[in-house]
Amino acid sequence: MVNRATTVNQALNDAVSLREPQKIHEAMRYSLLAGGKRVRPVLCLAACELVGGTEAMAMPAACAIEMIHTMSLIHDDLPCMDNDDLRRGMPTNHKVFGEDVAVLAGDALLAFAFEHMAVDTAKAGVPPARIVRALGELSKAIGAEGLVAGQVVDIASEVVLGAILGGGSDDEVERLRKFARCIGLLFQVVDDILDVTKSSEELGKTAGKDLVADKVTYPKLLGLEKSREFADELNKDAQAQLAAFDPDKAAPLVSLANYIAYRQN
Amino acid sequence: MVNRATTVNQALNDAVSLREPQKIHEAMRYSLLAGGKRVRPVLCLAACELVGGTEAMAMPAACAIEMIHTMSLIHDDLPCMDNDDLRRGMPTNHKVFGEDVAVLAGDALLAFAFEHMAVDTAKAGVPPARIVRALGELSKAIGAEGLVAGQVVDIASEVVLGAILGGGSDDEVERLRKFARCIGLLFQVVDDILDVTKSSEELGKTAGKDLVADKVTYPKLLGLEKSREFADELNKDAQAQLAAFDPDKAAPLVSLANYIAYRQN
Repeated sequence: MVNRATTVNQALNDAVSLREPQKIHEAMRYSLLAGGKRVRPVLCLAACELVGGTEAMAMPAACAIEMIHTMSLIHDDLPCMDNDDLRRGMPTNHKVFGEDVAVLAGDALLAFAFEHMAVDTAKAGVPPARIVRALGELSKAIGAEGLVAGQVVDIASEVVLGAILGGGSDDEVERLRKFARCIGLLFQVVDDILDVTKSSEELGKTAGKDLVADKVTYPKLLGLEKSREFADELNKDAQAQLAAFDPDKAAPLVSLANYIAYRQN
Repeated sequence: MVNRATTVNQALNDAVSLREPQKIHEAMRYSLLAGGKRVRPVLCLAACELVGGTEAMAMPAACAIEMIHTMSLIHDDLPCMDNDDLRRGMPTNHKVFGEDVAVLAGDALLAFAFEHMAVDTAKAGVPPARIVRALGELSKAIGAEGLVAGQVVDIASEVVLGAILGGGSDDEVERLRKFARCIGLLFQVVDDILDVTKSSEELGKTAGKDLVADKVTYPKLLGLEKSREFADELNKDAQAQLAAFDPDKAAPLVSLANYIAYRQN
């Protein structure tokens, strides 16, 4: 999985090269290449290969997902939104480049994500009908409902995207959608748990924010112990959806689920 | 053309209906349905029909273009950008809904534009290959280069989009691209002229802004008289590109060019 993240980083670096207008691209690259776990793109690639597709078929979509995710982080951190100074252990985008550039860099990442996905997936030889279906799926996931629910790119969508682009059957796509919904919820539960159990330094972002913001979280709703049990259950439910697939090909998704369940930051 | 704008308004109203999350959709609709000349969508529809397509083939693209245009206006007006209070004669989006909602409403309009175009154009029966090509064209036009050049959706792109979706030949698409480039430049020259010759009330937006902002404009570069001559020339060049088409079908584009050249606000 570490190798996979490296491949994604390389693809992102190539996709958003440093060009005119220089300052905007610098700002885009600053946040896009700042690290992060690349869980979303790796899930997208794994789903594509699970249904018989190749890495090249899903790589532009995997990059697009990460661009959109980064856009949402940049805009969420703005002073008029969450007003955050730290992200992934570094100063937030607007702290470095100014608010005006941060707004534009986010907009540009969102627009470029669609360009990259439409143009480069076609270059990879994926049939146009699949691309249109995948684009509809992606944009639906990040529309007004997705963006504002604060979830931005429901984690299910990248798995579904990969499955569509890899040529999965309707049945396979739906099974993977269920897998991803469990994983997405799992991710959120673990995030909530980490927010109350880890320091800012360990997380690479401001800890304890949910408490300060008076946010509804799983530990507050269920208590810490029950939240951990719920996380275990979601992990099991997710992996049950993979039973119908070739175990060798499903292995990366199994280990991703475990990684999400047991991550420490 | 007035009828056409009404049809576009109806389609926009249907596409972005009032739904959850209520406040974001209210903000999206406030700016999207605030009027405006709908020059861009009307050009898109006219280009589609000029090459033999139907209105339904290009309507989702026409709406998508207007959504993206509106997004760029909302974000440009933000305090950290141009800090504008008036737009189309009304208080700007963030003045009414707050900055946080204005950022999200813009993001949601951009994302929904792609969803609407991908999903609804497919429903209209346009072949997927054409949709993918049109999506690539649209997103390229509004990527980092387009957004940051402040032009956002180069006016050429909507004409090219219409021509692609309507099934135009490569030759027809390129001829219309040239037409649109002339029109786009014409639009800018006339905008610059109006900024120095009209009042805020007549324009429905703050007049004299270019002077205050020390922006490079055509009247400043060429003088007012030469700017008007340049506008006439661009209008003639644009219309020359339409000579190869059926005059009846080209009539809406001819009158649009004249409308852009002779508009008073």
